[in-house]
Amino acid sequence: MMQTPLLLSSFIKRAELFFPDKLIISRTGEDTIHRITYREFAKRTRKLSDALTKLGMKHGTKVGTFGWNHHRHLEAYFGVPSAGAVLHMVNIRLSPEHIAYVINHAEDEIMLVDDNLFPHFQKLAPLLKTVKHYVIMGDSRDVPETTLENVHSYEALLDAASDDFAYPEDLDENTPAGMCYTSATTGNPKGVVYTHRGIVLHCYALGLADAMGIREADVMMPVVPMFHVNAWGLPFAAVFFGTTQVLPGPGLNPALLLDLIEQEKVTITAGVPTIWLAVVKVQEQQARDLSSLRAIVCGGSASPKGLIRAFEEKLGVPFIVGYGMTETSPLVSLSVYKSGMEELSMDERIDIRALQGLIVPGLEVRIMNENGEVPWDGKTMGELTVRGPWIASEYYKDERTAEAFKDGWLYTGDIAVMTEFGYLKLMDRTKDLIKSGGEWISSVDLENALMSHEDVFEAAVIAVPHEKWQERPLACVVLNEGRTADDAMKHQLLSYLEGQFAKWWVPEDVVFLDEIPKTSVGKFLKRALREQLKGHELNV
Amino acid sequence: MMQTPLLLSSFIKRAELFFPDKLIISRTGEDTIHRITYREFAKRTRKLSDALTKLGMKHGTKVGTFGWNHHRHLEAYFGVPSAGAVLHMVNIRLSPEHIAYVINHAEDEIMLVDDNLFPHFQKLAPLLKTVKHYVIMGDSRDVPETTLENVHSYEALLDAASDDFAYPEDLDENTPAGMCYTSATTGNPKGVVYTHRGIVLHCYALGLADAMGIREADVMMPVVPMFHVNAWGLPFAAVFFGTTQVLPGPGLNPALLLDLIEQEKVTITAGVPTIWLAVVKVQEQQARDLSSLRAIVCGGSASPKGLIRAFEEKLGVPFIVGYGMTETSPLVSLSVYKSGMEELSMDERIDIRALQGLIVPGLEVRIMNENGEVPWDGKTMGELTVRGPWIASEYYKDERTAEAFKDGWLYTGDIAVMTEFGYLKLMDRTKDLIKSGGEWISSVDLENALMSHEDVFEAAVIAVPHEKWQERPLACVVLNEGRTADDAMKHQLLSYLEGQFAKWWVPEDVVFLDEIPKTSVGKFLKRALREQLKGHELNV
Repeated sequence: MMQTPLLLSSFIKRAELFFPDKLIISRTGEDTIHRITYREFAKRTRKLSDALTKLGMKHGTKVGTFGWNHHRHLEAYFGVPSAGAVLHMVNIRLSPEHIAYVINHAEDEIMLVDDNLFPHFQKLAPLLKTVKHYVIMGDSRDVPETTLENVHSYEALLDAASDDFAYPEDLDENTPAGMCYTSATTGNPKGVVYTHRGIVLHCYALGLADAMGIREADVMMPVVPMFHVNAWGLPFAAVFFGTTQVLPGPGLNPALLLDLIEQEKVTITAGVPTIWLAVVKVQEQQARDLSSLRAIVCGGSASPKGLIRAFEEKLGVPFIVGYGMTETSPLVSLSVYKSGMEELSMDERIDIRALQGLIVPGLEVRIMNENGEVPWDGKTMGELTVRGPWIASEYYKDERTAEAFKDGWLYTGDIAVMTEFGYLKLMDRTKDLIKSGGEWISSVDLENALMSHEDVFEAAVIAVPHEKWQERPLACVVLNEGRTADDAMKHQLLSYLEGQFAKWWVPEDVVFLDEIPKTSVGKFLKRALREQLKGHELNV
Repeated sequence: MMQTPLLLSSFIKRAELFFPDKLIISRTGEDTIHRITYREFAKRTRKLSDALTKLGMKHGTKVGTFGWNHHRHLEAYFGVPSAGAVLHMVNIRLSPEHIAYVINHAEDEIMLVDDNLFPHFQKLAPLLKTVKHYVIMGDSRDVPETTLENVHSYEALLDAASDDFAYPEDLDENTPAGMCYTSATTGNPKGVVYTHRGIVLHCYALGLADAMGIREADVMMPVVPMFHVNAWGLPFAAVFFGTTQVLPGPGLNPALLLDLIEQEKVTITAGVPTIWLAVVKVQEQQARDLSSLRAIVCGGSASPKGLIRAFEEKLGVPFIVGYGMTETSPLVSLSVYKSGMEELSMDERIDIRALQGLIVPGLEVRIMNENGEVPWDGKTMGELTVRGPWIASEYYKDERTAEAFKDGWLYTGDIAVMTEFGYLKLMDRTKDLIKSGGEWISSVDLENALMSHEDVFEAAVIAVPHEKWQERPLACVVLNEGRTADDAMKHQLLSYLEGQFAKWWVPEDVVFLDEIPKTSVGKFLKRALREQLKGHELNV
């Protein structure tokens, strides 16, 4: 067989040749929507490669982005790696210290920054040690007033560039193409390097009829940010398949997303549960036509069943839960149905949708406890480990590699079970698991149950030390407005749980809080909660 | 990223873990249908690997098969390459001399032969130089009476084998996995070697929603033989995705295929036009329920529009034309619709279906004439060249490699145009093209037009030498029963063509024949026709 390398440049060529008139619909600001064809995209992308090369981009140069989802970011997704350089998508939601850390650690030499983020960004520029050029992504040919040197307008650079830049066809497919950093709960973010091969194979997986089935006829809107695990790889796949894509830009809100779905006839969209919870509420107040949607893909954290039900039952939109992480490109599993499952009752189908789902073709998983691999019985918990060609093999120049990558597998830090029918179910993060009398209790299961109670707004369950059982669960609950945080409520919640769990799973106590502390991406910050409640006296 | 190799053994593991109860429905003879689960398949495949290893199979050993489509052949598809050996699927329709040639040339050491083909096969066994063992694929634990030595029963070998054979996980993905020989029009067949990497990537392409979309919920029946380009890769893909597969065995006929479609609720099937022409006729006489079918894939030679219309319009079954060859694994293109095409008229849609279609993601094509790459204008003809990770890079130990593989591309020997909307249209084989006065005339276009005439059963158009124009087209026509082969008919056919083609395309003359000579796979043998009509005097 030919040793043709799997390269991102082939995607640009394919989109330009076969789908030149298909659109990238790009919102770059309030009331500003660009409609770029793939023909224009391909030309602009080659111009970007030429322009950045003139600024000094070489094979292996790290080019950072600091921006929302729009066509210029997409051009950087392709124009940087296709030329043999590496695109580092900086998470704009990190703290200024962490932003500076990741840019310095990756050694980014050129930074592409959204015009509306530049005022924020330039404040941390003095912390940056390796950046030589700043390119402002915006419509203007002028650059904003700034004390920084070497600041360029993206569009002005493109005006001066050639669109016949030739991409190397003999690049090794294992050449680094992209980088993302994952926010560690303690310490600095950890870098993951994506290769051309990994991204291409991940795109094939995204296009499989049995996975997301991304196809040319789709109108795909990634709500998940392009600075967050390559927007789950979706913009890459869309170019590969010639799919129309809607890049929703900055200042997202539920009404805007609903309007885009209705106006652009979006067929598939993807984002985290928080987004879809907000979208459901707004849709209930003012219904848009969502009939174009064939699927919503939801990941990042567990989806409450009420949310799944709202889409599947009330709105008639398939709501597919996925699992992945920065280290896994990210697609690991999707709660798609196996044949026959469509005939189950709505409740049973929602139960399946709420699982993390079927492992996509090409990856292998094991659930490991201290005795080795556990059986797929839906009960035995262990740490999820993953292996495959789009799974990272290390953290970039980071000693923490040894903690997560062992004997050829990624140890995800997630506690999971596999059901007998081969679906992944996440139970907890390793460090959030409650170890009571030698048995494991899933904080996530308890939280989901509590959050299904009509009086509860949010709930987090953490371990507190216990003399006899080593650890016992403690429920931290935020009540809905107007509810009274008293002993009667406490007992009501505990007896609600008693109906659903083994006795020893039921939390030892309930504390009522005004809010649960959260990370920058909206996940419960249990470390802070454990700190806060360290001295809590069990009181039931 | 992890350097996890793309290996066929991962497919077995996946099917066994995720789809253990899905079925392989295997017809091994009249009234004999086996129903094997993927759980059993995985065990039997490991047993086969163990049994063949005991017979001397090592890394790189060539193991030949001589059989129809059934579960034992499928076990060999996986059990041989997963162990690091190479499966050579011998085309049982070759002449005895060519069968001996390919087995000797590949240096097959073990031959797996269908019980019902063994009487035929053992006659040519004396010609074989490298085969040490014969394994009879059939239900019996006994071996037939034979003068050959080292003849084993497949089932008896499996009985004695262990099902915990461990496949190497560190095999290089570029390790040869399979071999097929393509029948050359002159000389000996030419061998093509498939690698694990090539087959795995080809399977991803088969599973794409925009290609065949093979998925778990499908019931897939490959009518194309497993000795013909890996049955187009479909059995591999089916195991990868956990798809139910129906392997229809020996003695195929249209009624049997229709019965299998109806009884097993086949959703997708694939084969050559000859098969589907026969199937349509039988379906017209006695209609089966074909409502389970979501697609018929047709390749191997051009599909007459009447055939496409019969399925699309009368039977309501999407009829997708594909293009490929032994050298291309084989999937190159499929006449699937781009978005918007569904809204065209039935006639327009059938015109699109009749094209060879859209190039599948992952491959590149060029159409080359003496001046280089030709424009995609639907008119300018040239030779189709293909490049990609599942395209062969050579013929196995064969000097003819230099004719077909040049500057990193496969020169297919097919004359084609690309339409403006990026669909491949085959015009001719290089050697069948008619070069008239410096211009090219497509024999295939003329043949298709002639065969759409109500009086014509078959038609082949060949070049005859011409003093002024170098070559001119000559139509060779077999009329339908009851039609008269006279001058009136001749003029009727020529004026029928005059309405459709430029004047200089219209054949110089028509000869009426009783039949068109054909190759072993049913393609027109134009070389024989040219020989036969060498001295023909043009007579219009």
